[in-house]
Amino acid sequence: MTGYDTISFLSDFGHDDEFVGVVHSVIRSISPATSVIDVTHGVAPHNIRAGGLALARAAPYLAPGVVIAVVDPGVGTDRRAVAIEVGHGMSILLGPDNGLLAPAVGFVGGATGAVEITNPDYRLTASGPTFDGRDLFAPAAAHLCNGVQMSELGPEVDPASLRPGLLPVAHDDGGDLVSEILWIDRFGNCQLNVAPADMTHLGSVIQIVIGDQLRTAELVAGYDDIPAGRVGLITDSSGLISIAVARSSAAAQLAVAEGAEVRLRPVDSDRPAGFVSAVEITDRKERG
Amino acid sequence: MTGYDTISFLSDFGHDDEFVGVVHSVIRSISPATSVIDVTHGVAPHNIRAGGLALARAAPYLAPGVVIAVVDPGVGTDRRAVAIEVGHGMSILLGPDNGLLAPAVGFVGGATGAVEITNPDYRLTASGPTFDGRDLFAPAAAHLCNGVQMSELGPEVDPASLRPGLLPVAHDDGGDLVSEILWIDRFGNCQLNVAPADMTHLGSVIQIVIGDQLRTAELVAGYDDIPAGRVGLITDSSGLISIAVARSSAAAQLAVAEGAEVRLRPVDSDRPAGFVSAVEITDRKERG
Amino acid sequence: MTGYDTISFLSDFGHDDEFVGVVHSVIRSISPATSVIDVTHGVAPHNIRAGGLALARAAPYLAPGVVIAVVDPGVGTDRRAVAIEVGHGMSILLGPDNGLLAPAVGFVGGATGAVEITNPDYRLTASGPTFDGRDLFAPAAAHLCNGVQMSELGPEVDPASLRPGLLPVAHDDGGDLVSEILWIDRFGNCQLNVAPADMTHLGSVIQIVIGDQLRTAELVAGYDDIPAGRVGLITDSSGLISIAVARSSAAAQLAVAEGAEVRLRPVDSDRPAGFVSAVEITDRKERG
Repeated sequence: MTGYDTISFLSDFGHDDEFVGVVHSVIRSISPATSVIDVTHGVAPHNIRAGGLALARAAPYLAPGVVIAVVDPGVGTDRRAVAIEVGHGMSILLGPDNGLLAPAVGFVGGATGAVEITNPDYRLTASGPTFDGRDLFAPAAAHLCNGVQMSELGPEVDPASLRPGLLPVAHDDGGDLVSEILWIDRFGNCQLNVAPADMTHLGSVIQIVIGDQLRTAELVAGYDDIPAGRVGLITDSSGLISIAVARSSAAAQLAVAEGAEVRLRPVDSDRPAGFVSAVEITDRKERG
Repeated sequence: MTGYDTISFLSDFGHDDEFVGVVHSVIRSISPATSVIDVTHGVAPHNIRAGGLALARAAPYLAPGVVIAVVDPGVGTDRRAVAIEVGHGMSILLGPDNGLLAPAVGFVGGATGAVEITNPDYRLTASGPTFDGRDLFAPAAAHLCNGVQMSELGPEVDPASLRPGLLPVAHDDGGDLVSEILWIDRFGNCQLNVAPADMTHLGSVIQIVIGDQLRTAELVAGYDDIPAGRVGLITDSSGLISIAVARSSAAAQLAVAEGAEVRLRPVDSDRPAGFVSAVEITDRKERG
Repeated sequence: MTGYDTISFLSDFGHDDEFVGVVHSVIRSISPATSVIDVTHGVAPHNIRAGGLALARAAPYLAPGVVIAVVDPGVGTDRRAVAIEVGHGMSILLGPDNGLLAPAVGFVGGATGAVEITNPDYRLTASGPTFDGRDLFAPAAAHLCNGVQMSELGPEVDPASLRPGLLPVAHDDGGDLVSEILWIDRFGNCQLNVAPADMTHLGSVIQIVIGDQLRTAELVAGYDDIPAGRVGLITDSSGLISIAVARSSAAAQLAVAEGAEVRLRPVDSDRPAGFVSAVEITDRKERG
């Protein structure tokens, strides 16, 4: 195979500034026939974990080709810029070696090769060292589309040396399934690190414990199946369990943020109501 | 005619998440030569009326082809997913049958055919039922572009059975033209459901009554023709009357939201001044 | 050369409404083979200076072709709509004659020709006079891509008559380099109108005075080289000096806005300490 025709591009650049447009322009200038698809640029600034999760959720749907992912607070330091091949050349992911690419790479079967991007022939001369999206990743991606081999970008890197992405795993605690909110989407749905198969033993009506809040939620098929004033649990578009409410934001109603712990508990739990300890209650009172 | 080369895409997905990018990726994978134009994804979450109005405003300018519109709080329930043909095949609009498509379809002359999208051959296998934009509408649109006939997507639907979009109509109330704010744009201009021809009898200087506020406004050609500190009325880019101020937000100055009632009243109205109460006038002075 | 294949598009339209999508649609309908690159649409409403600076920062990276720039509070008045050629036809910039295009035109070597866009053959018939992006600039750009000559758009204009963009110049005040914040980006970095060469005499550790705040900052290569709790000075991607902090927003920490005055002062300045008053120091302690 020679070259690629699609670049998928994810970043924390937002749309208020011209960052995204400039990256598109650089690609257009080097590889005019390449299509660039913006996966999202709404990752919270510097939030490597959120960016890595967004890329992993999108990964199964991306067109084969080159991926640029930039959430890069370490730009300008000695963190490596890397290219990671997956599927024996089906796609090549470019980004900082800070764990951002790891979830997506793992999701699609792992790396089949990797290099550090160092070759100055495939870089722009930069005014300053702060915009590798423009000066390093965009030109490298465009040249890959033009048929440049990944091995020409720089020296080989052992995939085992790449920084992993660390994701929380749900676990059992005395009958509670202790999970975490991975992602809150625009609609306020709260995605947990729980697949439906992980919770079949809990039944279809489940207690949800978040901090000092205790809610009873039913497993439903669609958002609109959730009764007004109630929260529901739904298998979302990633195949994970999300906490949702109908036509409103579950995150706002529960006042939770990404990273919050969520306990899923059988309704017939014999766990005493006092499970939430006195100390914790005090803490919460002080917060309130 | 075989196939289409353009998909116009509107949704309430926003740009914070990867939803829009994933839809683009699915289309790219199925129909690589098709261009996707993002009409807007900034519709307020679940706001079917606002999405329908945005699509109708854009409709006269869209390239012939396929339209995907997704503002779909009922996703995952038994609401129908439909394809509506307009102009005898000039364009096909895809979306939930919840009234979202109705204003645009009406605007371009009405449906010349419709089907319910049910054929599993033109759908992705989904992890969950919450993302029909990705799993149903994007693949159906891409296959239409590839030359699949609309009739292959599923069984015919009587256009008369499609859910209508209900839009408010301005009416006379004792000399007042009682209208409603359809849309507040980024600049704070407040579009009314009033065409210039509806208000010629009111003259070119008009009283505007919103709640307890009474303003006098002049019909002007350009925003900058509105004197500082005043509101103006302008024929906007949809050919409707908008309340505006120069280089600032009329919506913020008037503290109004979409859906608010606006009365347009002749300056020589014999309606008693007491309609606007003394207390309210005091309030305005204090604000000034 | 006949025609162009790329339109770069910048505006203050935002993404909440369908403005950007409609402009894309108009271009697609007139010149289907043209690619449109969105530079940014996040310019603050009506902020001509911010739009002009964003366009100038992007200019060196834009693909040759046509540029549409619309930050246009005077739309509908008698302000001129102009087309400005640069590089003897390499690119043509379209926009209102309000200073928006001036910084970019200057940056790429100045105008080699200009016309006022008046020819009704290359305009859409408009419902109202408020959306020249859709009705005038988009069709003119698309027709230029199709091979229409700039001279056909309307009568020649003396480039010297175009409205200039006025940008502040840093200056010396008793040893202080008095500068201004040109741009605060999404990450909170504060770009100054100062190039590294302008401040070599100040050394690598510099006092920053903003209003009543006095900070000591070091010149660093990357954001992550800035110690926690400190501000740093970095040569940014435009080749200008930016005030930054590591993994957070300098603008938020300093509570500054675009346009604020920033004094860069040698650490060994003999300027009396009293320049920053006692009261102000107290204020800072209270904030800390």
